[in-house]
Amino acid sequence: MALIVHKYGGTSMGSTERIQNVAKRVAKWHRAGHQMVVVPSAMSGETNRLLGLAKELAPAKATPAYDRELDMIAATGEQVSVGLLSIALQAEGVEAIGFSGWQVPIKTNSAHTKARIESIDDARVRSELAKGKVVIITGFQGIDENQNITTLGRGGSDTSAVAVAAAMKADECLIYTDVDGVYTTDPRVVQDARRLTRISFEEMLEMASLGSKVLQIRSVEFAGKYRVPMRVLSSFTPWDIDINEEAQSGTLITFEDDENMEQAAVSGIAFNRDEAKVSLLGVSDTPGIAFRILGSVADANIDVDMIIQNLSKEGMTDFSFTVHRNDYAKTIDLLKEKVAGELGASEVTGDAKICKVSVVGIGMRSHAGVASKMFRCLSEEGINIQMISTSEIKISVVIDEKYMELAVRALHRAFDLDLAVGSDKL
Amino acid sequence: MALIVHKYGGTSMGSTERIQNVAKRVAKWHRAGHQMVVVPSAMSGETNRLLGLAKELAPAKATPAYDRELDMIAATGEQVSVGLLSIALQAEGVEAIGFSGWQVPIKTNSAHTKARIESIDDARVRSELAKGKVVIITGFQGIDENQNITTLGRGGSDTSAVAVAAAMKADECLIYTDVDGVYTTDPRVVQDARRLTRISFEEMLEMASLGSKVLQIRSVEFAGKYRVPMRVLSSFTPWDIDINEEAQSGTLITFEDDENMEQAAVSGIAFNRDEAKVSLLGVSDTPGIAFRILGSVADANIDVDMIIQNLSKEGMTDFSFTVHRNDYAKTIDLLKEKVAGELGASEVTGDAKICKVSVVGIGMRSHAGVASKMFRCLSEEGINIQMISTSEIKISVVIDEKYMELAVRALHRAFDLDLAVGSDKL
Repeated sequence: MALIVHKYGGTSMGSTERIQNVAKRVAKWHRAGHQMVVVPSAMSGETNRLLGLAKELAPAKATPAYDRELDMIAATGEQVSVGLLSIALQAEGVEAIGFSGWQVPIKTNSAHTKARIESIDDARVRSELAKGKVVIITGFQGIDENQNITTLGRGGSDTSAVAVAAAMKADECLIYTDVDGVYTTDPRVVQDARRLTRISFEEMLEMASLGSKVLQIRSVEFAGKYRVPMRVLSSFTPWDIDINEEAQSGTLITFEDDENMEQAAVSGIAFNRDEAKVSLLGVSDTPGIAFRILGSVADANIDVDMIIQNLSKEGMTDFSFTVHRNDYAKTIDLLKEKVAGELGASEVTGDAKICKVSVVGIGMRSHAGVASKMFRCLSEEGINIQMISTSEIKISVVIDEKYMELAVRALHRAFDLDLAVGSDKL
Repeated sequence: MALIVHKYGGTSMGSTERIQNVAKRVAKWHRAGHQMVVVPSAMSGETNRLLGLAKELAPAKATPAYDRELDMIAATGEQVSVGLLSIALQAEGVEAIGFSGWQVPIKTNSAHTKARIESIDDARVRSELAKGKVVIITGFQGIDENQNITTLGRGGSDTSAVAVAAAMKADECLIYTDVDGVYTTDPRVVQDARRLTRISFEEMLEMASLGSKVLQIRSVEFAGKYRVPMRVLSSFTPWDIDINEEAQSGTLITFEDDENMEQAAVSGIAFNRDEAKVSLLGVSDTPGIAFRILGSVADANIDVDMIIQNLSKEGMTDFSFTVHRNDYAKTIDLLKEKVAGELGASEVTGDAKICKVSVVGIGMRSHAGVASKMFRCLSEEGINIQMISTSEIKISVVIDEKYMELAVRALHRAFDLDLAVGSDKL
C-alpha cells in the first residue's frame, strides 16, 4: 500500500462527465489498495470567469486590500471542484471527503495572489485516510496567519499537490494533465518531438522556466527541495487502463545523479516569445551602472530576465536586458525619460519582435561542445544571434522572432532529439 | 452614529452593474457616519447552477457525507459575492473587507444543508469596523465544531443578516429585496394590495409561514427572539435617494405591543398552493390514533402542516392533514399500503388541487368576529371551506385551488385592507 497524490488540471475537470472519469480513475487506484489524496484545479474557464467579474469592478489602482478580495473570489473555483469530485467518488461507492486549503490547513505567507506555502498540517488528512476515505484538497490556495484566504498564482495547483506530497512523504505525486508527458520540444512546432520517459529535476526546472507550460516552475522547485517523486501523465487515457501500465506512463522527474547512465548531452529545446529586448548604448563603464539601471526598472515593478553587458571600449559600454513583452513600452519610456539622461547614455534601443530559444540538458556538464554545436547550427540556417545567456545546464539565445520555428526544428535535429535516450516516439 | 446591517438578495447582486449600485448605496450610508455590515446573497442563478452540477454527479442516495460536500459547493456563491462587493466598494473609495462565515466565525450545528446558527464571535468584525472599514459577510453559511462548512438552507442569508445584527446589537437590520416591502397580500393577485409601513413581528411570522415569500421564516424568528429592529425595503430605488427617506421606506417589523395604537383587526391575507390534503375516513376514535397515523408519516420524512380531527360519531372519526404537494403521492401510498390496514380505516381520500388562504392580524386578539366575517365572505362568493385551522393571530382555510384568487380578493376587500392603517397605496 502506497500513499499517492493525484493532481488533475482544469481541462481534466472541465465538465461533470470528465469529473466522473476522474472519479473512476481515482476509485481504481483506491481499490488497488493505495491511500489517495487528490488535488483538483478549478473547472476550465472558471478562474477566468471569476477574475473577469472582479476586473469589471476593480478600483483604478490595485492594492493589497484588492488582492485579498481577489483571492477570496478566485479560491472558490477549486472549492467547487473539490466538492464535485467528492460527490462523484461517493457515487462510485468510494468514501470521500473534501477540504479547502484553510481546512487542512495549508499555511502560506500573506502575499495575496502569489502566496508561498509555509507549512502543511496533515493531521486531519491522515485521520480521514486512516478511515479508508479518499481525501480531496483544493489546489492553488491556503490561509495566512490572520485567517485570510490566499492563492498561489496561476498554475498553483501543481505546487499545492507537490507540497502536500512533500508534507505527507507521499510515495509519488502524479500530475494528470492534457498532454501525456514532457517532450523534447513542443510537438506543435516539431513533429518529431518525443516524449521523455524521464527527465532530471534540474532539466525540468530549466524547461519550466524557459517556456515549457507543462508544469508550474514552483512545483518543480518544491519537488526538488523535498525530493518528491513526481510524474506528468495524461488524464485522457481511458480511466480503466491497467494500473501498472498507467503507473509507468508519462514522464518521471528524477533526482538521481544518474552518473552511470548514458546521458544525452541535450534533453530538450525550450522557447518563448513573451520577451522583448532593450538596450542602453554608450554608458560609461563605471561601478554601480548596472544597479542604477536595473534599480530604476525594479522600482517600476518590471521583471528582468536576461542581462548582458559587453566589454567596454574606451570606458564606454552597451547594456542590454530582456523584459516581458507587456512591459516593453513602459520600459523604453522609463529608460528614455529618466535613466538615459542620468547616465549620459548615447541611445536607447529595443526590439519587441524577438524570441528566446534554449537547449537544456544535464549532460552538458560533461559534454563539451554543446554551445559551439548550437551556434553552428543556427549559423548554418542563417539565423543571427542577438544575445546569449548560459547556465550549467542550458544555453539560451535571443533571435528574431520570425526564425523561431526554424531554429527549434534545426536544433531538435542537430542534437538528435528524435533519437533521444529515454524517450518514446509519439 | 449607528451600527447598521444591510442584506442584499440575489437579484440585487445579479450583475456587476447591480453590485456597483449596491456599493454606491452602502457607501452613502457609510459616508453618513454609520458603521456598516453588509450580508450579500449569491448572484441570482448561481446557487441553482452549483447545485445543478452537484445533482448531475450525485450518488443514488443522499447521505450526510453528500450533504457536507453540497454545502462546500453551495457556500462558494456567497463568497464570490462578498469579494465582488468588497472590490466594488474599494472602487468607490471606501475601505472594505470581506469574510466568509468560517472567518467571522459564525458557528452552527452540523445539520448540513439546513444548519442552525449557534453563536457568532464578532471580535474581528468589530475590530475592522473600528478601523473605519465596511465589513462584508457571506450570508447562508457558517462552520460547525469540526471546521466543516455548513449552509442554512434556502433564503438563509436573511437569517445570517438578522443573526449578525442580533449578535452585534445593531441599531437596525435592513433587508433589501426586489419588492419594496410587505404587502397586505400579493399585489400580483390583488391590484389594491397596499404596502404596510409597519407590521408586528408575530404577524410577519405568520405571513412568512403561510406563504409570503418576502422573508425566510427563521430570520423572523431570530428577529423576534433578539428583538432586532428589521426593515424590508427595495434595492431598486435609485442608490442616491435621500438617506432619511430611504431609512423610512419599506416595511418596519415592530416589537412594541402598540396597545395605544389604533389597530386594524387584520393586517394581511396570505396564501399558498404548495399543499395537498389527505384523509383517513372511519378510524376508531381511541387514544393513540393521531400518533399512529402521524408517526408513520414522520418516519417517512414527510412534513405535515394542518391537522384536523372531527368529532367522532359512534366511536369512529375522520382524520385529515395537509402535506407538501410534492409528498402527496408518497403519502397516499403510505396510508393505503400500511396505515389504513393497521387502523382499520374505511377509506383513504385526498386532493392535491387545494390551496390555503389565511387572514393574519395581531388585532384579532381584541376584535371578535374576524372568523365569522371571513366565513361569511367566502360563503357569499360560493366558496366551500374544506378545512379550518386557527391560531391566536391567524385563521387559515383550505379551499378548492380554483377559487384562490377570488377568495384572496374578496377577503382583502371585506377586511378593508385597501384602507388599512399604517399602509401606503401602491
